[in-house]
Amino acid sequence: MASGKLPPLDSRQVIKDLKDLARLTSTPDGAQRVAWGPVWRKARSWFTAKVKSELGLPVRRDSAGNNWVTLPGRRPDGVIIGSHLDSVPNGGWLDGCFGVICGLGALRRHRAAGKPPVTIHLVDWADEEGARFGRSLVGSSAAGGSLDPGRELAHLVDRSGTRLPDALKENGVDLNHLLRAQKELKDVRGKAYLEVHIEQGPVLEKMKKSTGVVLGTFGVERHLIRFTGQAAHSGSTPIPMRRDAFLAASEFALACRQIGLKMSGPTPETRVVSTCGVVRVEPCIVTAVPGVCEISLDQRALSAKVLARMNATARIASARAAKRNNVRVDWKAIWRIEPRPFNKNLLRLCAESVQEITGTAPRLPSGPLHDAAEMVPHMPTVMMFALSSRGLSHCKEEDTPLPHLDRTIRSFHLLVEKVVDQA
Amino acid sequence: MASGKLPPLDSRQVIKDLKDLARLTSTPDGAQRVAWGPVWRKARSWFTAKVKSELGLPVRRDSAGNNWVTLPGRRPDGVIIGSHLDSVPNGGWLDGCFGVICGLGALRRHRAAGKPPVTIHLVDWADEEGARFGRSLVGSSAAGGSLDPGRELAHLVDRSGTRLPDALKENGVDLNHLLRAQKELKDVRGKAYLEVHIEQGPVLEKMKKSTGVVLGTFGVERHLIRFTGQAAHSGSTPIPMRRDAFLAASEFALACRQIGLKMSGPTPETRVVSTCGVVRVEPCIVTAVPGVCEISLDQRALSAKVLARMNATARIASARAAKRNNVRVDWKAIWRIEPRPFNKNLLRLCAESVQEITGTAPRLPSGPLHDAAEMVPHMPTVMMFALSSRGLSHCKEEDTPLPHLDRTIRSFHLLVEKVVDQA
Repeated sequence: MASGKLPPLDSRQVIKDLKDLARLTSTPDGAQRVAWGPVWRKARSWFTAKVKSELGLPVRRDSAGNNWVTLPGRRPDGVIIGSHLDSVPNGGWLDGCFGVICGLGALRRHRAAGKPPVTIHLVDWADEEGARFGRSLVGSSAAGGSLDPGRELAHLVDRSGTRLPDALKENGVDLNHLLRAQKELKDVRGKAYLEVHIEQGPVLEKMKKSTGVVLGTFGVERHLIRFTGQAAHSGSTPIPMRRDAFLAASEFALACRQIGLKMSGPTPETRVVSTCGVVRVEPCIVTAVPGVCEISLDQRALSAKVLARMNATARIASARAAKRNNVRVDWKAIWRIEPRPFNKNLLRLCAESVQEITGTAPRLPSGPLHDAAEMVPHMPTVMMFALSSRGLSHCKEEDTPLPHLDRTIRSFHLLVEKVVDQA
Repeated sequence: MASGKLPPLDSRQVIKDLKDLARLTSTPDGAQRVAWGPVWRKARSWFTAKVKSELGLPVRRDSAGNNWVTLPGRRPDGVIIGSHLDSVPNGGWLDGCFGVICGLGALRRHRAAGKPPVTIHLVDWADEEGARFGRSLVGSSAAGGSLDPGRELAHLVDRSGTRLPDALKENGVDLNHLLRAQKELKDVRGKAYLEVHIEQGPVLEKMKKSTGVVLGTFGVERHLIRFTGQAAHSGSTPIPMRRDAFLAASEFALACRQIGLKMSGPTPETRVVSTCGVVRVEPCIVTAVPGVCEISLDQRALSAKVLARMNATARIASARAAKRNNVRVDWKAIWRIEPRPFNKNLLRLCAESVQEITGTAPRLPSGPLHDAAEMVPHMPTVMMFALSSRGLSHCKEEDTPLPHLDRTIRSFHLLVEKVVDQA
């Protein structure tokens, strides 16, 4: 049943709100809304005041510090819109808050049309970035239940020596009660989770598209690989007698790129990435053959099967490079997460919305993780991306030019409308 | 004219002296005869006392702190035997002092036969290692005239904050008078310079040979090469859109090894080496494509022409790797020295000596530099190498098993005999 009487799609208020928030919470170096700190609290107070004055609704805090706004509908079944107000230090004006402010715009639109057929919730997840203590997705993973606060959070300390449990307490949040947010999430009876975010990558810009349909978040295999050969004098050791750990690592890194290129299919769904970002050699002096080279591998794919094959192939490549260079190789896993593909029905509605507004509906996976990934096990979930200028993010240069932002806001509001209608 | 009446070749006293010196100047971590320091002075005092008691000769200090012993001959023309008593910290028992003590043995042998036909000099060069201040070959390059003390030494400071000029002063050496050692070298009228050293590489051991004829010291091209691409998120940047500086450097490093292998001829004279020892990436984090990779290249060859071609080819390879990866490449020269091939006539005498004692005369270039390199422009020069166990040097494990040491000492004494006879 259509909501009816919804005001026309219009992005102007959302863009004005984003600019207001940027002015309120940025320095010349960028956004400073680091979770659990004073600027973040200021952003949330501003948001709470807006919700109160514009919608006449309260903001309630769950046990993990997530902020919820609820627009009651004719049925208790919920459609959840979520994102985060927190930013990295010296961050951009859109990462995170775009989704919250755009969600507020959707609530405003449905509020203007009277009681919606289902209940619409807006959640501002706490500490998505993990910028201060190093663990990201704190609020959403507490609500989603994948977090183990005692093991993962209790020991964390920021650069100034403040313990994470104390920073939580300062914000009225108790580490020992974080997981109660699971029940609070269940209570909102979410039947769909929707999130809009900037891409933080160059794909949409390269395609000259404003807005993209996000297929899911990549699974990640993250490892540290250590090649151990023998340091030797650069002048006195003939090349064929060397056990050069760096050259072994070089062969491996190039092989990993080839594996990534070969396992990438022609469609965005089948694209994969593979990165060697950390490289350290020992003894790292001009006159010595490197005896040790440690290198990181970060592989990502939307298909768990493809990801597993990529990783297995990389292991074979590392053994081959080690053998060819007469060195040893050892792997150490750093971190793993399985792929989180989004819901097919919501992907269809998302594609329809983007198509109607922008005339086209490019599909792409999300390389970075998002709060949405934590919702995938609990309800149908989908995300929408706005183009990122030059793919830049986590810096003050981060931007989405206004025409692209406008189209994405209207596409997302249309998606909310469709989901609410269908729910 | 043969010297006549020379005692038979015998290594025992030289080996005993080496063991005595090791006991006197080592800790459980190895030799501690770092130039300009107290243990080095102790070694030199011990040496001076031996020269005095065994040969009745004085040790004189030149303006660069080099110690000279002169066994006057029937003619003033000089045969110079040289090496260095200084070591790196935690060094081996042979690096440097082997040549000095073996030279002392040669002087002893000729002294026992009366006045030699020519004058024989033994020089203990000061600060060959450069272990404390970073500039090696200080004493020999001052005497050879290739040193610019004001530009190269005046500003050097050790880890404890002591300035090099002050460390010299502590040893009675004036930085401003270092180059006077040039005249002092000329005054000894050297017609030949002979040096024996351990190989510090694995070549002789691999060939199962005790002793080698050294063809000359390699020329060196040493550069820092910087690849500049663009740091990017490891999840959101598709592989084909990346500008990965590390992968460019990897391709380059592998190409440099291929260049080295391809330009190495089948003989020891035509062997070359090529090493990438320093590797640094930025930002060096697991989730970022490296935007910058800085890598060192150290190329060495005995032929200046081959070395120049190696370097030119590496430059082409760097440009190719940069282009293929869409990054920029910049070269910065760190250091260069031309090859120093040894004298043909002395090489023949050296080969004869090694052949007579060991039954074979393997020829090999020297990868590391030695004081001998500084003498090449001034007089016919040659070196002899003793096998190094596992190619190890600059560590307490450094060793030459006694049977190999014995053969090398006798070969070197025979070489001195032949050169003195022919001079």
